Amino acid sequence: MKVFIVHAHPERRSLNGALTDLAVKTLTDAGHEVRVSDLYAMRWKSTVDAADFGPAASDPLAVVPDSGQAYESGALAADIRAEQEKLRWADTVILQFPLWWYTMPAILKGWVDRVFTYGFGYGVGEHSDTRYGDRFGEGTLQGKRAMLSLTVGGPEGHYSDRGINGPIDDLLFPIQHGILFHPGMAVLPPFVLYRAGRMSSEDFAAAAERWRERLLSLEETEPVPYRTQNGGDYEIPVVRLRAGLEKPGRSGFALHLAE
Amino acid sequence: MKVFIVHAHPERRSLNGALTDLAVKTLTDAGHEVRVSDLYAMRWKSTVDAADFGPAASDPLAVVPDSGQAYESGALAADIRAEQEKLRWADTVILQFPLWWYTMPAILKGWVDRVFTYGFGYGVGEHSDTRYGDRFGEGTLQGKRAMLSLTVGGPEGHYSDRGINGPIDDLLFPIQHGILFHPGMAVLPPFVLYRAGRMSSEDFAAAAERWRERLLSLEETEPVPYRTQNGGDYEIPVVRLRAGLEKPGRSGFALHLAE
Repeated sequence: MKVFIVHAHPERRSLNGALTDLAVKTLTDAGHEVRVSDLYAMRWKSTVDAADFGPAASDPLAVVPDSGQAYESGALAADIRAEQEKLRWADTVILQFPLWWYTMPAILKGWVDRVFTYGFGYGVGEHSDTRYGDRFGEGTLQGKRAMLSLTVGGPEGHYSDRGINGPIDDLLFPIQHGILFHPGMAVLPPFVLYRAGRMSSEDFAAAAERWRERLLSLEETEPVPYRTQNGGDYEIPVVRLRAGLEKPGRSGFALHLAE
Repeated sequence: MKVFIVHAHPERRSLNGALTDLAVKTLTDAGHEVRVSDLYAMRWKSTVDAADFGPAASDPLAVVPDSGQAYESGALAADIRAEQEKLRWADTVILQFPLWWYTMPAILKGWVDRVFTYGFGYGVGEHSDTRYGDRFGEGTLQGKRAMLSLTVGGPEGHYSDRGINGPIDDLLFPIQHGILFHPGMAVLPPFVLYRAGRMSSEDFAAAAERWRERLLSLEETEPVPYRTQNGGDYEIPVVRLRAGLEKPGRSGFALHLAE
């Protein structure tokens, strides 16, 4: 495999750092190639602005068309182009981060906002009365696999079916479906460590063993069965799920899982 | 009212800019006090790091306890303390932003990550076997009201009950419930403009009128009826919704709405 890890934590000597280090070692020892973007170490710029688009920036700035024109003309900032190249190189992408306020830290959101430009991350393919783009299963990153690995402060029960935070699968849906599946990647089930601030060394040893097992079985792991946009399940161009496809009683994000 | 608007868009001459300008004028003309944090204009720092915590930063950095100690001792960076003061001053908070990748832009997530510290945004109140903090309806910002105002590139149908992106209420739940209700604010229904990149001047005039009406009726608007954590609906300390409280067939985020 060619594995690209995007790491987003301000302290490398942290649980997140240990998980990334373990991933690099485990995968390299198994003969795979690994590249890491350590966003804090890179001092990654988090905010989309005119400087991202070079001469393609219009005045007033128009983020969507300007990002598309900058992508097409090669005018994107060098740090963005480098990340797009790593995504093209990889066959497997891992995002490693702590869950902060129920989603990714700002620096990782800024990596998505800046790297997933129009023409690369979205706005790909024909948009017409009969088609609404190559997305949700198709697109620039089709054929690749992606996985979230995250640490969570609270206990698992708070993220269970009836937990007050909402189910972890629903909290991760906007990332897994909206960001990773959208440009075409298959999404593997996430690796989640709860009560991350209270791990004993025994807890960590057990978690590390589980992480190694996940890493070494990546190639055989079945993706989350999100429905592809253009596979017939959705009315086009309104892009609504056709009636009657889901199990009775399903609603919300869970509709978009093939049964 | 004392209204605090947090504005997150890189181009002030944009639809988001027009909505913020209209809010300032409408509310001021009606006799209300308004303060605005224009995050791009302020060059808001998006990333949590040791510099945020001053002498309270430990080595290695431990974000949760360090942010709590910095908050208690007054060692937080000046820009964070200024935003906390604006939140304490306000009775009404509006977040104005474009929906990027199904959530807020990185600069606004970085405002949450940095300002909502331990002791201020979370980690408030008794945590024991019989209580799990003052949160979800209680906390530092209890008694205040908050509202999202956002622009969305896609059409409304994509964000409807069966739309491929998932329902807008579910996409906004981690922000509305997880970030705003968590430290105690009541959450008003969001103001959402779809197809933001394709608005004609007639469309904008109609949207502006709807926005004015929302702004001038803020004080009479009923909040989203999220269940309070400590009001009896949840088992404590597992913080799971007690069985049988919801309408039949409800699941996921919608469980946390009182019927």
